[in-house]
Amino acid sequence: IFLFVFQIVLLSSLGWFLFFFLERKYFKQILDHFNYNSLGNGTYDQRYLITDQYWKKGNGPIFFYTGNEGDIWEFAQNSGFITELAAVQGALVIFAEHRYYGKSLPFGKDSFNIPKVGLLTVEQALADYAVMITELKKELEAQKCPVIVFGGSYGGMLSVYMRIRYPNIVTGALAASAPILSTAGLGDSRQFFQDVTADFEKFKPACRDAVQGAFQKLNTLAQQKDYRRIQSAFSLCKTPSTPKDIHQLNGFLRNAFTMMAMLDYPYSTHFMGSMPAFPVKVLDLSLAQKASALILFRPTGIVYNSTGQLTCYDLYSLYVECADPTGCGLGFDSYAWDYQACTEIEMCYESNNVTDMFPPMTFTEQQREQYCSKRWGVVPRPGWLKTQFWGDDLSTASNIIFSNGDLDPWANGGIRKTLSPSLIAINIPEGAHHLDLRESNPNDPESVIVARKKESEIIAQWVQAAMKESS
Amino acid sequence: IFLFVFQIVLLSSLGWFLFFFLERKYFKQILDHFNYNSLGNGTYDQRYLITDQYWKKGNGPIFFYTGNEGDIWEFAQNSGFITELAAVQGALVIFAEHRYYGKSLPFGKDSFNIPKVGLLTVEQALADYAVMITELKKELEAQKCPVIVFGGSYGGMLSVYMRIRYPNIVTGALAASAPILSTAGLGDSRQFFQDVTADFEKFKPACRDAVQGAFQKLNTLAQQKDYRRIQSAFSLCKTPSTPKDIHQLNGFLRNAFTMMAMLDYPYSTHFMGSMPAFPVKVLDLSLAQKASALILFRPTGIVYNSTGQLTCYDLYSLYVECADPTGCGLGFDSYAWDYQACTEIEMCYESNNVTDMFPPMTFTEQQREQYCSKRWGVVPRPGWLKTQFWGDDLSTASNIIFSNGDLDPWANGGIRKTLSPSLIAINIPEGAHHLDLRESNPNDPESVIVARKKESEIIAQWVQAAMKESS
Repeated sequence: IFLFVFQIVLLSSLGWFLFFFLERKYFKQILDHFNYNSLGNGTYDQRYLITDQYWKKGNGPIFFYTGNEGDIWEFAQNSGFITELAAVQGALVIFAEHRYYGKSLPFGKDSFNIPKVGLLTVEQALADYAVMITELKKELEAQKCPVIVFGGSYGGMLSVYMRIRYPNIVTGALAASAPILSTAGLGDSRQFFQDVTADFEKFKPACRDAVQGAFQKLNTLAQQKDYRRIQSAFSLCKTPSTPKDIHQLNGFLRNAFTMMAMLDYPYSTHFMGSMPAFPVKVLDLSLAQKASALILFRPTGIVYNSTGQLTCYDLYSLYVECADPTGCGLGFDSYAWDYQACTEIEMCYESNNVTDMFPPMTFTEQQREQYCSKRWGVVPRPGWLKTQFWGDDLSTASNIIFSNGDLDPWANGGIRKTLSPSLIAINIPEGAHHLDLRESNPNDPESVIVARKKESEIIAQWVQAAMKESS
Repeated sequence: IFLFVFQIVLLSSLGWFLFFFLERKYFKQILDHFNYNSLGNGTYDQRYLITDQYWKKGNGPIFFYTGNEGDIWEFAQNSGFITELAAVQGALVIFAEHRYYGKSLPFGKDSFNIPKVGLLTVEQALADYAVMITELKKELEAQKCPVIVFGGSYGGMLSVYMRIRYPNIVTGALAASAPILSTAGLGDSRQFFQDVTADFEKFKPACRDAVQGAFQKLNTLAQQKDYRRIQSAFSLCKTPSTPKDIHQLNGFLRNAFTMMAMLDYPYSTHFMGSMPAFPVKVLDLSLAQKASALILFRPTGIVYNSTGQLTCYDLYSLYVECADPTGCGLGFDSYAWDYQACTEIEMCYESNNVTDMFPPMTFTEQQREQYCSKRWGVVPRPGWLKTQFWGDDLSTASNIIFSNGDLDPWANGGIRKTLSPSLIAINIPEGAHHLDLRESNPNDPESVIVARKKESEIIAQWVQAAMKESS
C-alpha cells in the first residue's frame, strides 16, 4: 500500500499514463545460461513491465528496454520517450529488469553471498533478454515483429551489446549515454571528472577555480587537524578525526558534484533521488566570495538532503565508496553494481585537482584489484569487456544510434562521431544523462526535440526495412 | 618414445613437414570466463601447436584452427591445407586445442565429474580462443596481423561463431563441413541418415535396397530369437540375447556405414581411425546376392577392425551409444562430446528404414532429455544454439566461407547456398567430410582443387582488405 500511494504521487507529474498501462509480470528465467551443472541449475523470476496499449497486434514493432542497474520502475518512469514513440509507431512496450536488481533477485536476500553473486554478469543479463524476447514473441504471436532495444547509461551499453551479440533477435538499438569505451578501459582515466568540472565551468567559468580552491582549503584544514571547523562547515553528524574520514568526505563531495552534472536536466526530476531544475546552477559563487570557501559546498545538500529533513550528514551512510568512483548508490542495487564494477565493467577514473576541480583521488587497476578481491573474492580481468564486446572496433556492427548529451560527464566515454550510415552518433548540446529517453517536457531544449525526432525517424526506417525483409 | 615413433610413422605420409615445424605449447587459460566466483576461479593449461616457419613476422596473417572434439594433433595432421596456404601467404599457423579434449583437460581425469564438467560449453571454448589470440598477438608483436580462423565439422561451427561473435578479433572464417543448421535443431531430423544412404546409392543404386533388406532380415532373425545365427554372421564375441543387444548391434552397424560415408576420401587416410581409399566402395553387392544378405555387413569391419587383428567383435566396447546418433567415438574425448550433445549441440537425428536404408531408430528431444538427465544431470535447452549463434539468420554476418562436400552426410545440415558477396558457399561434388582442409594429394578430384584455389583467393582478399584498413 505504501508503495502504491508513493507511486501515484511520483507519477502524477511523470508520465502518469505509464502507471495505468504498464503491467508487472514475471518471467521464469534460466538462472545460469552458461553452465548446465552449476548451482544455477534452475530458474528465477525476472520482472518485466509490459503494455500492448499502443501495439498493432502481431504487426507493430516491439520496443524493449534493456534494464540496467536498478529497479525497472525507476527506468520506466524516466524513459517516457519510449512510450511516446510506441504510441506513434504502434509498438508493444516491454521494460525488462536486470538480474540482481530491483525485484529480480535470483536468490532473494542471499543473492549477494559468494558464490551466489557469481551469476551476475553482463553475458547472463544479455542472455536473459535474448531468451525473454524469443519466448515472449512466441507467446504473444509476435514472431514477425522487429525488436528495437532501448537503454540509458549501462542500459545503453546493454542495448549496443544486444544488437551486436544478437542481431538475429534485435533489429536496432537506441543507446542513450552509453559509455561503451570508457567502461572497457579505453580512453583517458582523467576524462570523467574533467568533464564534470567542465559542466560547472560552462555554467560559470569561475566555478572551477572556486571549487578547486575550496577542496584545497579543506585539505589544509585537515592537515591542521582542524576537524571541528570541518564538521561545522559541512554539518557533519560526527567530528571527522582521521585521514580516512577526510578521504570519505572528499568522495562524498565529489559524488554530489557528479550527480548534479549528470542530472542537470532543465526541469526538476525524480531520478536517482530528487533534483531541482538545472542543479548545476545551484552553485552560488557569490556565497563563496563572502565568507569561507567551504560554504561553496553547501549546495551539495540538494543531493543528500533534497527533502531538507536531515539536520546533519552522516558521511558513511549517505555515501558508500565502491569500485565505481562515480558512485554505486545505496542498498542492494549498490551491491550488485559494485560487483559488476569489480568484474567486467572497468571504471578506473581518477581526479587530480589539476585537470579537474576535485581533490586528487586515484583508482588504479591495482587499487581496484585489491578492493575487489577483498570485498567479493574476485580478480578483475582488464580488457575482457573490450574482447567480449568489441571496444571501439565496431566496423562490422550496424543499426545503432549512440546518443549523448554534451552536459553529461559520461558522454565522452561513448561514441561521439557517426561511424557509418547505420552507426549514428547524435549529440545533444543541452542534454544531460540520457535526457532524450525522458518524456517530452515544456522545458525541453530545442536540441533534444531535434534528437528525438531524428531517433524516431531512424527507428521507423529500421522497422520498415525489417518488415519488408521478412515479408 | 612410443608416441614419438608412432607419429613419425603416421606422418611419413601425412604432411611430414608438420611434424618438424609445429611446436607444442601450453597457454595459461582462464577456466571460467563467465563466472568470477565459481569453482573455475583459476586457470588451466590449454595446448596449442604453432609454427612461424612461413610467417612474415609481424606482417603476415595468422591462420588459427579452432580445435574441435578431439586431440589437436589429429586435426593438425588432417588439415594440411592450412599449412600449405600459410606457406604461400606468409602466415603464422596456430592449432588450438578445445578445452576438455586431448591434453587440455582442466581438471585432469576428474574433468568429467559433475559439476566440474559444467565448464565445457561452446561459449567457454570461444572465449578461450578469443583470449588466446589476443594474448598471443601481444606476445608475438602481431597486433597488426589479421586473423583467419579455420575449422572442420564442429570446428567449422566454432569458426563461424568466432567470426560472428568476435569480428573485432577475427577477420574471416573458413568453415569446412560445418553443420550449423542441423545442430541448432533446424531442418529435417531424417536428413542425416538419408544422406548417408544417398552416398551408397550414388556408388551403386542397388545398395540402398540391399542394405535396407539386410537390416530387415536382421530384424526378422532377432524376432525369431535366432541369436546364434546373428552372432556367427557378425562374428560377435558374445551371443546377443536381448532386444537391447540387437538395438546395440543396429547402432554399431549404422555407425559403420556413417563413418564410411563421412570419410569417403579418394585415398587411404588415418583420421578417426584408418580407412582405405573410397570406403563406400568396399560394399560388395555381388557378395550380398550370393548368400545370406547379412554378409553385406562384413565390410563394416574396415571401421572396427582396420588392422584385421580382431577375431570377433565386442559390440559394447567398439561402439558406445550416446547423445549423438552419429557416434561419439571412444575414450575421454567421447565423454566430452556426449556432454556437448547433451547440452548445447542438438542432434536428434533419426533413421526409419523408409527415407533411409537403416533400421528405425529414433532419438527424440524427449529421449535426449531422459538420457542426458540420467547420464550428466543436465536438461538440454532446445533452441539455445539458434538463439545464441543466430541459426539461419546470418544476414548481418560477413567474411565466412561455408565449404561442403556432396558426399558428406553433414553437408545438408550446413549452408549450401551463397548468402551474400561475403557469405560464400563452396560445394565440392566429389568431397567427403572437410576434404578441402586436407593437404594436397595426387588423388584429389578436380573439384577440391578448384575449391581450395577459390578459398585461398578469398582469404587473400580478406587479409589484404584488413591490412589496408588498419594501415
